[in-house]
Amino acid sequence: MTVKAYGAHAADQPLQSLDISRRAPGAHDVQIDIAFCGVCHSDLHTVKAEWAGTLFPCVPGHEIVGRVSAVGAHVAGFAIGDLVGVGCMVDSCRHCAECGDNLENYCDGMVGTYNGATADAPGHTLGGYSERIVVNEHFVLRVRHPEQQLAAVAPLLCAGITTWSPLRHWGAGPGKKVGVVGIGGLGHMGIKLARALGAHVVAFTTSESKRQAAEVLGAHEVVVSRDADAMAAQAKSLDLIVNTVAAPHDLDAFLNLLKRDGTMVLVGAPATPHPSPQVFNLITKRRTIAGSMIGGIAETQEMLDFCAEHGIVADIEMIRADEINAAYERMLQGDVKYRFVIDNATLAAA
Amino acid sequence: MTVKAYGAHAADQPLQSLDISRRAPGAHDVQIDIAFCGVCHSDLHTVKAEWAGTLFPCVPGHEIVGRVSAVGAHVAGFAIGDLVGVGCMVDSCRHCAECGDNLENYCDGMVGTYNGATADAPGHTLGGYSERIVVNEHFVLRVRHPEQQLAAVAPLLCAGITTWSPLRHWGAGPGKKVGVVGIGGLGHMGIKLARALGAHVVAFTTSESKRQAAEVLGAHEVVVSRDADAMAAQAKSLDLIVNTVAAPHDLDAFLNLLKRDGTMVLVGAPATPHPSPQVFNLITKRRTIAGSMIGGIAETQEMLDFCAEHGIVADIEMIRADEINAAYERMLQGDVKYRFVIDNATLAAA
Repeated sequence: MTVKAYGAHAADQPLQSLDISRRAPGAHDVQIDIAFCGVCHSDLHTVKAEWAGTLFPCVPGHEIVGRVSAVGAHVAGFAIGDLVGVGCMVDSCRHCAECGDNLENYCDGMVGTYNGATADAPGHTLGGYSERIVVNEHFVLRVRHPEQQLAAVAPLLCAGITTWSPLRHWGAGPGKKVGVVGIGGLGHMGIKLARALGAHVVAFTTSESKRQAAEVLGAHEVVVSRDADAMAAQAKSLDLIVNTVAAPHDLDAFLNLLKRDGTMVLVGAPATPHPSPQVFNLITKRRTIAGSMIGGIAETQEMLDFCAEHGIVADIEMIRADEINAAYERMLQGDVKYRFVIDNATLAAA
Repeated sequence: MTVKAYGAHAADQPLQSLDISRRAPGAHDVQIDIAFCGVCHSDLHTVKAEWAGTLFPCVPGHEIVGRVSAVGAHVAGFAIGDLVGVGCMVDSCRHCAECGDNLENYCDGMVGTYNGATADAPGHTLGGYSERIVVNEHFVLRVRHPEQQLAAVAPLLCAGITTWSPLRHWGAGPGKKVGVVGIGGLGHMGIKLARALGAHVVAFTTSESKRQAAEVLGAHEVVVSRDADAMAAQAKSLDLIVNTVAAPHDLDAFLNLLKRDGTMVLVGAPATPHPSPQVFNLITKRRTIAGSMIGGIAETQEMLDFCAEHGIVADIEMIRADEINAAYERMLQGDVKYRFVIDNATLAAA
């Protein structure tokens, strides 16, 4: 079937309306009519070919929510009409250690929701800036939020799970002091989730102007990272830092805020390396620097259910499909609070 | 009391025979007649003032073994004649979280065995290149090895515990594949200890000439890190890497050998930073880079007892005290298998 999408034919071209084809649902497939799709920085990096390996035409989008419109014969978990989501991946090998541990996100055969390998035309996956998508049921998430929150649920599928997974893996909760560096699409979810998990939350920002917003999001404390005294006051006090800033920056300034055995988790990969962290700051307190990438399907469902139970959604600004190029420009200037979400109903007229 | 020692009056002077004073044993002190003292790279860095803050005169040495020659009135755990050791520290605050967790090595008030703050003359601690030392009993370790192994026990007090602590903390044992990078004073102990703990041990060296020696030390596999094919064959296979190389080097080459959730622990701090590791290599497999510094007193005793039980000692080359300057020259060229140990009986005539 042919559906409307929004994407680019080349790295130097703006995104535009496209017709793409979707496969008919196989026995284990769920066909989803996409209601909304969040706009992630990865979308921009990929469609502009800032990371290696972008295949064109490129249709980004991996923060997908919508309603099931068809299911394959062997699909047991979903029915037509269900509210569902799809995140950053649509397939994996299903038999490696990572898949066996419900961490498909670390499977070497993980297939991204866009720009991944597929037998479907055109030979690579096309994402959520489209009217419809067909996905193996294993990679479909159930959405239990009220339908009126659906647009604001979309960013949970990437921004939410990307911060949830390290918060859970490294034990954020009551009695723990957790830092979140950067208050953007990822960071604003990190603050909300860490707070809801019961941690004492310290938000770090380069901008005094974000103080009040961070408090509203749930931060117990807000530290302007350019304020040396405020940073010194946090020295050796944090159990965990989730660092969402992908721009190269001084990691030592944050490492020094960790307690003994504390961990700083990087969830963004900079285009050029961070200044090299001082090993001395690691060894003197047995600190660690870790990386974390999205999350597995089971923990994504856990996160969605937790958010539904706690009334947590992203803070979003809704756009029409034909506003995406302008939205990218604003994202590059940090001018969004905190996530653009496309109203996919606007694709038909775009 | 005045005792003979070997040390330097300034960074640009060779070490020479010195007379130093030791306090009379206090109620909780153990007086130790030092039999042997291992020679650590830290000794060299400190006495040459390559690290900030060296106080002179400087008497290095923190791999100390000997026999108790006096005890204070309240000392319960040691008696005259006992074989004992002293490692990298002789005091700590005793009331912080780190001390409470038996990790005095991470206490902000930890007092190094040399170049640390003390009320004793000359106002900073003087180490094991000396005939005698007086140490609070909490920082004295019991040596259960046969006396004829005593010299080779000395390096366990730093090189041994520095590798033991991360091996234990990150779970080296049966079913785990553990890499040890660098086959020197630390690395040769790392190989022996990881092997004895039941792990599958892979030694990494830049030199094909060290292959056989690494096998003799206990490595199941030896990989020459300049051999790209051999490195590729280890990709994503290691649970833990203990990296003992303090010289700046490419960390990514080793990060890529870690499994998902694997950890590379750095136990050496380079004088200038390593090339900055790629965050991408961390996030794609939830890998971590950690630091670890020596170990606590309880785990040092655990390590010594384990080594006594398993017949593990360091491979050493014995020297006279007046050979220490020449030994430093050889250490700088990597010309030692694998640790120099001073025969402290030679101090009297030095």
